[in-house]
Amino acid sequence: MKHGDVLLKKTQLGPFPMHRLKRIAKPTTLITSDVQRIDARENAFDKAGRGDFGREVQREQTRPKKEPLVAAQLDVITTLASIEDKRVASSKAPIPEDPRILSHHIKRLGYFLNADIMGICRNPEYAVYSFDKMGNPITIDYPFAIVIVMSKEYQTVRASNGYDWVVDSISFQAYQRAALVAHTIANYIRRLGYRASPQHVRRYQVLIPPLLLWAGIGEVSRAGIILNPFLGLNYKASAVLTDLPLAADKPIDFGLQDFCQRCKRCAEMCPSKAISMGDKVMYNGYETWKLDVQRCASFFLLNKKGAGCGRCVKVCPFSRPATWSHNLVRWGVERFNWARKLAIPADRVSGHGKANERQKWWFDLEEGDGVLRTPGSSSNRT
Amino acid sequence: MKHGDVLLKKTQLGPFPMHRLKRIAKPTTLITSDVQRIDARENAFDKAGRGDFGREVQREQTRPKKEPLVAAQLDVITTLASIEDKRVASSKAPIPEDPRILSHHIKRLGYFLNADIMGICRNPEYAVYSFDKMGNPITIDYPFAIVIVMSKEYQTVRASNGYDWVVDSISFQAYQRAALVAHTIANYIRRLGYRASPQHVRRYQVLIPPLLLWAGIGEVSRAGIILNPFLGLNYKASAVLTDLPLAADKPIDFGLQDFCQRCKRCAEMCPSKAISMGDKVMYNGYETWKLDVQRCASFFLLNKKGAGCGRCVKVCPFSRPATWSHNLVRWGVERFNWARKLAIPADRVSGHGKANERQKWWFDLEEGDGVLRTPGSSSNRT
Repeated sequence: MKHGDVLLKKTQLGPFPMHRLKRIAKPTTLITSDVQRIDARENAFDKAGRGDFGREVQREQTRPKKEPLVAAQLDVITTLASIEDKRVASSKAPIPEDPRILSHHIKRLGYFLNADIMGICRNPEYAVYSFDKMGNPITIDYPFAIVIVMSKEYQTVRASNGYDWVVDSISFQAYQRAALVAHTIANYIRRLGYRASPQHVRRYQVLIPPLLLWAGIGEVSRAGIILNPFLGLNYKASAVLTDLPLAADKPIDFGLQDFCQRCKRCAEMCPSKAISMGDKVMYNGYETWKLDVQRCASFFLLNKKGAGCGRCVKVCPFSRPATWSHNLVRWGVERFNWARKLAIPADRVSGHGKANERQKWWFDLEEGDGVLRTPGSSSNRT
Repeated sequence: MKHGDVLLKKTQLGPFPMHRLKRIAKPTTLITSDVQRIDARENAFDKAGRGDFGREVQREQTRPKKEPLVAAQLDVITTLASIEDKRVASSKAPIPEDPRILSHHIKRLGYFLNADIMGICRNPEYAVYSFDKMGNPITIDYPFAIVIVMSKEYQTVRASNGYDWVVDSISFQAYQRAALVAHTIANYIRRLGYRASPQHVRRYQVLIPPLLLWAGIGEVSRAGIILNPFLGLNYKASAVLTDLPLAADKPIDFGLQDFCQRCKRCAEMCPSKAISMGDKVMYNGYETWKLDVQRCASFFLLNKKGAGCGRCVKVCPFSRPATWSHNLVRWGVERFNWARKLAIPADRVSGHGKANERQKWWFDLEEGDGVLRTPGSSSNRT
């Protein structure tokens, strides 16, 4: 085995030129020492399940998924989540000790397994939930997090309006693949003699957004979620926590704080008005636009004309595919104030925020009492 | 829900222009009425496990995977295989009855779930194993098979020499993803009120090659496996058997019988000399080049300088990525005799059949007695 310097150069390892982005020491979002660990039971969907957002929302959260495709996807990912963590090998494998070589190896492994973007960061203490869903205190001491990003399928995002019957499936398509990669990498690392814990939508002991921020996957957006310059909001992520000695990536700055301050497209188009039209505020130690999670989760669950909601993902100007023209706009927006001023109104008239009826391939189906029906209220497609 | 005629046009649904290929009534390989169903226990690897190929081969087949990455991949796919088939919904969903619309829907679903190529065929009786691995007779009466094709990751194929320490992992990367899609589609179809059975590397009741042939995924190659014009041998497949009323695709003809008759690259480079240098013969009702499965499986298992073997996949001129230049060659080879005569020697000097050392990212590791070691005999990389 020979890992020459060629492997450690700044080169593109995956489908997107992440190596070209400006790297900085700290995220573009101010994080103060006031930041507190979160209780996993304080997640909006758990609150909804407890009845904190009213009885109707509670009923929707606690029933099985009403749309059959996402129900099927959830069955499969739940099986994946049931995988017992393989015992850590009793002796360490004879692999290089250089953290840069190990980071390259793990990232390249992720791309081999079909990840769209890979990143690595130190695992900040405040990313770990304080208590799990059963109320047990969580103590995990993994120094590193490997972040695995999977793109949502753009043609279906293009066909959807962001809150119709396919939108929840779009998320689970990416969640499923991200979970498959996380379990495979974690199992492999344990065979190398290091601890590793897969983290994905059906088994979170950590918050993913701080990991995305520190691993340089994206910046905090107005929609309150992390935005990647090449995928926009159009992705889902999983992670592997580990003590394999890795080299951390750095956060990125592609001008998003200024872009989101001006754009407001997601806030205008959000059907629940959960996204702030105002300025950033301090919240739990983060300086960020504040999402109204009760409004967001309640609309997601109560949506009668679709399954879930991802309208912010659909309308965000950054969620456009990596064509040469969109990439040219990305290049400009990252660098120039005037490019942002031009790109924001241009996106409004581009038609990308609308549903493409000709590409609709899914069936509108809703389960009730064990029977699938065509939804009475039809779709909210515009 | 509205499925206009636009959806039924001959359009490209996935990454490859499968709709442009010449379709024919029967496969380019003669299949006579002599074709017999196969006993699943007569698979080369099962024979190896029983000791039919000698004690050393048997020992390698019955031990755990020696390479840690493929062992990790196998753990995850085995969990997937353990998914119990969801009960078929007691009533049928209100979906269109037109088999063409249902076929379009299922194919588009496969591409949504990240399949590289989707195809559909009637499930020929001779594709179904006569007996399962436990010796129980198999009777399955699913009229249709949905075929799911996943590309192997080309950069790693490029870096590998086809029989080094990464080659088995390359297959399982594609197997894993194909299994994930098969389970998801099968679960979804059962929710629609139809029967569906996922078939993949850890749970086969059918032979996949006849399905690939009839669904128009490829033609029989000299290497004895089905070759797709865009992926060559560089893929793995899974399937879903179902009684959902679908419209079958037709077999394809892209000139491979003539190409393989001339080329012989896989036979020349096969380290076990398992691939025939001669002409096609009649075997179990098929007119095909006859692979020596004992030689193939024995080399695969005994390989001391790597994990498994996929040298035929690596060296096949069709296993090149879909760049514009390779696609131009594909276009010519499909149509013109002289293009084949030019392309075969051109591939010999292109360097694509060699390992690319600069792109090697994996570690050479071999497990023995629960400990990982750098293999004493190193790698067979040339």
